[in-house]
Amino acid sequence: MSVWYYITPIAGIVALLFAFYLTGKINKVSPGNERMKEIAAAIHEGAMAFLGRQYKTLAIFIFCLAAIILVVGFLTKGSDSLQPTTAIAFVIGAVCSILAGNIGMRVATKANCRTAHAAEKSGLNKALEVAFSGGAVMGMSVIGLGLLGLGIVVLLFPGQNSVINGFALGASSVALFGRVGGGIYTKAADVGADLVGKVEAGIPEDDPRNPAVVADNVGDNVGDVAGMGSDLFESYVGSIIAAIALGASLSIGSNGEGVIVPMMIGIVGVFASIIGTFFVNAKEGGNPQKALDMGTIVAMILAIVGMFAITYIVLPSSFTVTSFGVTATYTNLGVFFATIAGLLAGFIIGKLTEYYTSADYKPVKEIAKSCETGTATNIISGIATGMGSTAWPIVVIVSAILIAYQFAGLYGIALAAVGMLSITGMTVAVDAYGPISDNAGGIAEMAGLDKSVRQITDKLDSVGNTTAAIGKGFAIGSAALTALALFSAYTQAVGIEAINIMDPRVVVGLFIGGMLPFLFSSMTMQAVGRAAGYMIDEVRRQFREISGLMEGKANPDYARCVDISTRAALKEMIMPSLLAVIIPLVVGLLPFLGKEALGGLLAGALVCGFLLAIMMANAGGAWDNAKKYIEEGHHGGKGSSAHAAAVNGDTVGDPFKDTSGPSINILIKLMTIISLVFAPLFM
Amino acid sequence: MSVWYYITPIAGIVALLFAFYLTGKINKVSPGNERMKEIAAAIHEGAMAFLGRQYKTLAIFIFCLAAIILVVGFLTKGSDSLQPTTAIAFVIGAVCSILAGNIGMRVATKANCRTAHAAEKSGLNKALEVAFSGGAVMGMSVIGLGLLGLGIVVLLFPGQNSVINGFALGASSVALFGRVGGGIYTKAADVGADLVGKVEAGIPEDDPRNPAVVADNVGDNVGDVAGMGSDLFESYVGSIIAAIALGASLSIGSNGEGVIVPMMIGIVGVFASIIGTFFVNAKEGGNPQKALDMGTIVAMILAIVGMFAITYIVLPSSFTVTSFGVTATYTNLGVFFATIAGLLAGFIIGKLTEYYTSADYKPVKEIAKSCETGTATNIISGIATGMGSTAWPIVVIVSAILIAYQFAGLYGIALAAVGMLSITGMTVAVDAYGPISDNAGGIAEMAGLDKSVRQITDKLDSVGNTTAAIGKGFAIGSAALTALALFSAYTQAVGIEAINIMDPRVVVGLFIGGMLPFLFSSMTMQAVGRAAGYMIDEVRRQFREISGLMEGKANPDYARCVDISTRAALKEMIMPSLLAVIIPLVVGLLPFLGKEALGGLLAGALVCGFLLAIMMANAGGAWDNAKKYIEEGHHGGKGSSAHAAAVNGDTVGDPFKDTSGPSINILIKLMTIISLVFAPLFM
Repeated sequence: MSVWYYITPIAGIVALLFAFYLTGKINKVSPGNERMKEIAAAIHEGAMAFLGRQYKTLAIFIFCLAAIILVVGFLTKGSDSLQPTTAIAFVIGAVCSILAGNIGMRVATKANCRTAHAAEKSGLNKALEVAFSGGAVMGMSVIGLGLLGLGIVVLLFPGQNSVINGFALGASSVALFGRVGGGIYTKAADVGADLVGKVEAGIPEDDPRNPAVVADNVGDNVGDVAGMGSDLFESYVGSIIAAIALGASLSIGSNGEGVIVPMMIGIVGVFASIIGTFFVNAKEGGNPQKALDMGTIVAMILAIVGMFAITYIVLPSSFTVTSFGVTATYTNLGVFFATIAGLLAGFIIGKLTEYYTSADYKPVKEIAKSCETGTATNIISGIATGMGSTAWPIVVIVSAILIAYQFAGLYGIALAAVGMLSITGMTVAVDAYGPISDNAGGIAEMAGLDKSVRQITDKLDSVGNTTAAIGKGFAIGSAALTALALFSAYTQAVGIEAINIMDPRVVVGLFIGGMLPFLFSSMTMQAVGRAAGYMIDEVRRQFREISGLMEGKANPDYARCVDISTRAALKEMIMPSLLAVIIPLVVGLLPFLGKEALGGLLAGALVCGFLLAIMMANAGGAWDNAKKYIEEGHHGGKGSSAHAAAVNGDTVGDPFKDTSGPSINILIKLMTIISLVFAPLFM
Repeated sequence: MSVWYYITPIAGIVALLFAFYLTGKINKVSPGNERMKEIAAAIHEGAMAFLGRQYKTLAIFIFCLAAIILVVGFLTKGSDSLQPTTAIAFVIGAVCSILAGNIGMRVATKANCRTAHAAEKSGLNKALEVAFSGGAVMGMSVIGLGLLGLGIVVLLFPGQNSVINGFALGASSVALFGRVGGGIYTKAADVGADLVGKVEAGIPEDDPRNPAVVADNVGDNVGDVAGMGSDLFESYVGSIIAAIALGASLSIGSNGEGVIVPMMIGIVGVFASIIGTFFVNAKEGGNPQKALDMGTIVAMILAIVGMFAITYIVLPSSFTVTSFGVTATYTNLGVFFATIAGLLAGFIIGKLTEYYTSADYKPVKEIAKSCETGTATNIISGIATGMGSTAWPIVVIVSAILIAYQFAGLYGIALAAVGMLSITGMTVAVDAYGPISDNAGGIAEMAGLDKSVRQITDKLDSVGNTTAAIGKGFAIGSAALTALALFSAYTQAVGIEAINIMDPRVVVGLFIGGMLPFLFSSMTMQAVGRAAGYMIDEVRRQFREISGLMEGKANPDYARCVDISTRAALKEMIMPSLLAVIIPLVVGLLPFLGKEALGGLLAGALVCGFLLAIMMANAGGAWDNAKKYIEEGHHGGKGSSAHAAAVNGDTVGDPFKDTSGPSINILIKLMTIISLVFAPLFM
């Protein structure tokens, strides 16, 4: 067995050690005064309590699914496709994802008050350093536990790709609960806090008198840190596993080089991301966005150099593969091009997202202008922008697919996904930095720190809004490419030569698959509505019943609001989650539909899901920033009728961008992985 | 040649004679007093002026496309697939569609004031009779000119299916301009009239002092009568042509029975629809909805009986066809089942639409309730309902596809479309009755007739809202099934055995195709926004500059508003229209994409377009009726904050349901027909 099989988990350990080092650095910073510690502790406990209760639901889900895998594995024994040991890989995948989320969130909820304190004592650069370090711990946990877990599974079950798929399914299951549950949690708390606190009671955002304010801050962590982390963990390991599967089945290289290359790219990505973090430094009064960009660009360049070295040295200068009965010859340089096509596509989609959602550009400015004629025109303008914003990302992803396929066939598409995700450590770090800064601002406000502190955290937070939008674009793009790679693996696993759209069963699959993201979004949006309703009732009740609360003489019952969000999120995520698991199995098993229809379903869900996710994420981000743009004084500023219209748009955008849109990523990946793992059932 | 080739155009003439008879009946009713005649004349002239100017743009488009067909036809000479004579069929198709729209709208704009007068003098039943007769003229023109034109083309070019496809392309081209242009026109006028008149100036709807009021009423005609008519004209002839093409290519029956059957179903449909119209009678104080339902059900039963007789008598009791290299045997009874599967699917989708958009059921009531917490929750609720409302129609259409395929293969799917559209005459009649009643109410208001008249027209109009929603559901469903049938014809025409989703070029096609409805909707929504902007400026200007206008002492300049809507609509429809024509050609011709990618594009557009169209139509319809439900006194009634939220939702829904949603129907059909006609270019 190649030495790289052993180096893969070691690289994972290196990433974890770096996370450990960063955690120590964060811990050295003072958490601030008693009030700050108290608030941070409340957020920390609320977040960990949510995770703890989520684990209980998750444990039942994992137990059941593992049991099903075992049973199906024994029943289909003899076929090479579903070993009972897949259940072990599945559990390891789930545990790794849980651990990554747990570590990342644990540290994020320690970094928030320390960021506020650093802003108070040492200014912008130190605050940026603490917040970014907190985010980097999440990033390193994702890639560290991804490579470590994957490396262990590959060593335990060498050459058994069907078993390794279980690892991806475990990651996917955790991501489903993390993204859907976290997404519902965060928006229920946010909408509840805003509608009663800001609109009805007229107190500012993050005001400590608002009973839902801690739940709101918890939500930032469980949704934007843990949820996003589990999403990218899934894409990260999913892309590598799909490339391993295709590398093995297409017999690329004579000594398993096709299998080793994706792992090596992962290893290179660890070091590229670690080095990249050292380039994130802002001067006092400088722009934190530039500091973050610098880190990303350094990581990208290092990754590109590394990928060139890997493909050039490891792969034979040319190799021949056969798929769909067509034999083609590719070069090592071609594989390199395929890989960077993916990396660049991820970067460009992120930048396009920035264009559509940042107030620096035309789309958001036009949405802000449309607020002058009222809410209706704002909504129409935002939805039209969201819909229109799908065009260029489609061109980019389609170009990446064509280039990757042209230069390296199906394997090239899988490697494009690996390439896009190679700098996941850095991407997650930049992304998770946002909610930490947001929390820091909340703590500064609640603890009554000086206005200058809030100015610094606001600056960090405003950059965080952009990085969040970019991160969402990246998450969607990587989900699409990963799902496509896994889709190829599925077709290999069920042994079909063609999924013919001219076959009406495939058309039926396309229709059903295309409908699922719509239905899923509908369910998650309505779930947010219901959960927010409970929260609104509770906040109103506390304002009514706790005497002295509005005067600041009594404390609200934060824990109760946290509890309501937690229970509502856990309850509401059940139905959509079951849908995602059961429907592909039913379609695959029904005699008049079957594996071809399931292939159509996966393709339909991928296409519609990608489009809907981009539309919702970009419309939501654009509305959010249009509101901020007006609040800066344009079109009448705060309190104007345009501002009221903008607030409505922002509220509509909340579940769009933070619940339904991101949940679709999971839906399209999970359904593909479920189909891949249970492939033998459909033969 | 079978005698049925001659009976087909004769049946078309019968339908036209019936339309002529109905027109005479309408003309016998008095148009009312001078003021009513004056207003009706303004609407009539505005509508005809719009059509006239639309024809000019259309003439250029048709001339260019005919020239391209001729050139390509001569260049590809020798291949059997694109005859230069296709250009002749193309022009005939366009002219027939134009004539149908022209006749229908001419009569509809005569029936409006007569409906108002009938309501004044003779009550509900007579008013219903006049309005419905006006709608029936549109319905009979559609099927009459459809069968007459198609019959002539089939007789002129016997057995040359490639030439006949040109007829469908002509119908499609006119529908594109009718639906997109009409949709932009009607909403620009509506939004402009409402925002300045109702919201800013505080005058009621249809108040004669509002300069945009005539344009608004013209819009109802050009959008909901002519636009809808051209849409269903296209589906109607498209479905028959696809069935003829498949019937011929699959060699169903030994003497061309497979080609004759779809024409015979069309013939039966003419008589079923004519007889059905006689069952539309409401008692005084009765429910017009029941009267319309009765007509539809009678027409459906007659069509079913006729289809049974046709398939049973004409087709051999069993026949064998080969497609995708698979040979299968079907029965005449099987073909009958396939046909009624389509007819019932159309009916059920209509009923589902009613469920999601009528205030009698839960979804609209919940949307109305969500208005209590403001505009944002209303918007979220409406979008979630729209998205969720895609699920059941998908189940229905998918079931129809599976049943039709199971019982009669690809030919069955084509016949399901023909079956669904067999009662098009009745469906269009019921649908076009709505805007006529709406207009009648507007005229009653503007002419200051007694309130009791307005009560009658309001009752008719409220039923019209439901029939409009049902009609939209039917139009989308029939567009999907027609596009699917045409898609099968395309794959036969380009001679591909399989469009394999595992081929990345096909995936790329799916992605691009899926994106187009999003982009198209974005463009049409923004077009409405811009056009409404011009209208708002003009209405504000007239209120400001024409002294005595608000006091009713001076007349507004209606013509100028009509002119603005007309010019804006014609200008704004160019870009989306070109997109629909050019993109499929480019994808089909690009060497690294080609005919397989084009197949993927058509499938992606069909799936995403169907979903998006249903979502937008149902969300729009639900918001509209939620507003009406609140206006009836629920949740605080008119003037409450819930009502204000509902008005915003309704305004967002306007371009959803009347511009973008319906335009998608045309997009998916037109792109398929373009691909079918230019198939030889991609070989």
